[in-house]
Amino acid sequence: MSLEIASASKSFGGWTKHYTHFSEVLNCDMRFAIYLPPQTANGQKVPVVHWLSGPTCTDENFMHKAGAQRIAAELGIALVAPDTSPRGDAVANDDSYDLGQGAGFYVNATRSPWNRHYHMYDYVLDELPQLVETAFPVSGSASVMGHAMGGHGALVLALRNPGRFRSVSAFSPISNPVNYPWGRNALTAYLGEDASAWSEFDASLLMRKATQFVPALVDQGDADAFLDEQLQPETLEAASKVSGYPLKLNRRDGYDHSYYFIASFIDDHLRFHIQHLAA
Amino acid sequence: MSLEIASASKSFGGWTKHYTHFSEVLNCDMRFAIYLPPQTANGQKVPVVHWLSGPTCTDENFMHKAGAQRIAAELGIALVAPDTSPRGDAVANDDSYDLGQGAGFYVNATRSPWNRHYHMYDYVLDELPQLVETAFPVSGSASVMGHAMGGHGALVLALRNPGRFRSVSAFSPISNPVNYPWGRNALTAYLGEDASAWSEFDASLLMRKATQFVPALVDQGDADAFLDEQLQPETLEAASKVSGYPLKLNRRDGYDHSYYFIASFIDDHLRFHIQHLAA
Repeated sequence: MSLEIASASKSFGGWTKHYTHFSEVLNCDMRFAIYLPPQTANGQKVPVVHWLSGPTCTDENFMHKAGAQRIAAELGIALVAPDTSPRGDAVANDDSYDLGQGAGFYVNATRSPWNRHYHMYDYVLDELPQLVETAFPVSGSASVMGHAMGGHGALVLALRNPGRFRSVSAFSPISNPVNYPWGRNALTAYLGEDASAWSEFDASLLMRKATQFVPALVDQGDADAFLDEQLQPETLEAASKVSGYPLKLNRRDGYDHSYYFIASFIDDHLRFHIQHLAA
Repeated sequence: MSLEIASASKSFGGWTKHYTHFSEVLNCDMRFAIYLPPQTANGQKVPVVHWLSGPTCTDENFMHKAGAQRIAAELGIALVAPDTSPRGDAVANDDSYDLGQGAGFYVNATRSPWNRHYHMYDYVLDELPQLVETAFPVSGSASVMGHAMGGHGALVLALRNPGRFRSVSAFSPISNPVNYPWGRNALTAYLGEDASAWSEFDASLLMRKATQFVPALVDQGDADAFLDEQLQPETLEAASKVSGYPLKLNRRDGYDHSYYFIASFIDDHLRFHIQHLAA
């Protein structure tokens, strides 16, 4: 697993870096970003928070727009932000913004043509974290967070792998994809029309039957244009009541779906994660 | 002067908004961004810091990437970020990134074809601030800051209009444009080959002969790829010694020319400005 550095910029005393590497799982070249806080300069190992972005994003949006490096530097957290799908001319694609390149939905596709490359679930759960642990001064302590499609991805990762993540958080997550258009569209394409295959990628269904818990924080703006048609965080809240899941859902008056919303509350999320990462 | 709102996103309890309007000075439609901190919600008038961006930027980059809203919300400062040139099919342009649309250099062009629209100096000094004061709950108290070409613009505005700005700051400013390629290229195109016309747009020449002072703060990364060939902040430092100008120049070890550098020190700059804005 060889890494090639694409850029490195000093940020808040640490470094925001972008790398390229060949992914065996995705069978293509990939980019990811990492923020290494100043505590790593003397070899100190720090915990990691993995960030999963929403559709149309790359490895850049979060590092550019969330303003997360400031608080990560203060708390001593490394941030890892992968791209949102496999990429390249040889990789299947679709003209719509919510399917194909830029919209891998963090699943392992089983249907042609997607199954050749679209294994983002395995990539963000295993291959990329292992690469990061091998190449950078990070401890084994990890949490996961994301936005929209990436909020769905983060919740599904933590719900299916409670021993792997100390905590999970999401901004504006797609909470019940089996029942709403973005989710149904992606799951149909990647996993096929048989909806019984979808339930392992639905945070609300997983949370409802959960028996092992990962502390979970969700923030949702009530001026989010996708709230009713796509996101439906109340399905998560209802599921948490069934299983007794430790979910804190904050509704934020007047906030929309943008990175301005994320930036406004990223401090809260990283402070939430460090409580569990440092425990 | 009619304003049309293009977008509004709640940010840190305030609002990041983008507007379009017809500029009489530039003779074209323009966009600008404004951040209104939460203190304005109850009608309180707040001071303004004007931000001038570097070449290739629009009204979006600063609001997306600088992470300034957090500290502006805390301090009660409105932020205004104009586009970097006149825009549109009818506006003269050039294929290079450092001339024409996206690179107005904050001068009043006197040469054809640029003189028809390129009066960014008058736009950012007069027309836009007046529009902002008419339309938004801001006080008359203003400071100005910018990056690269915009750092040049901010310094020139303050040096030529010491009664208009309480303080000025810059990241990686083009400090002595009459002597370096970006500056010479832009000044030749916009003002003509006679270099005697250029001195009113050169921060180092203006600072050297200044007799009225505006407190000035400059930050410069020492890993900035443009440092020696384009920026040359030591010319500002030398000029400040001649006139006794109140300039604080910080050299920052390892930082480059990017918004990651700006984000790392934007708190310091806004805290510097509020000292003078609130006085």
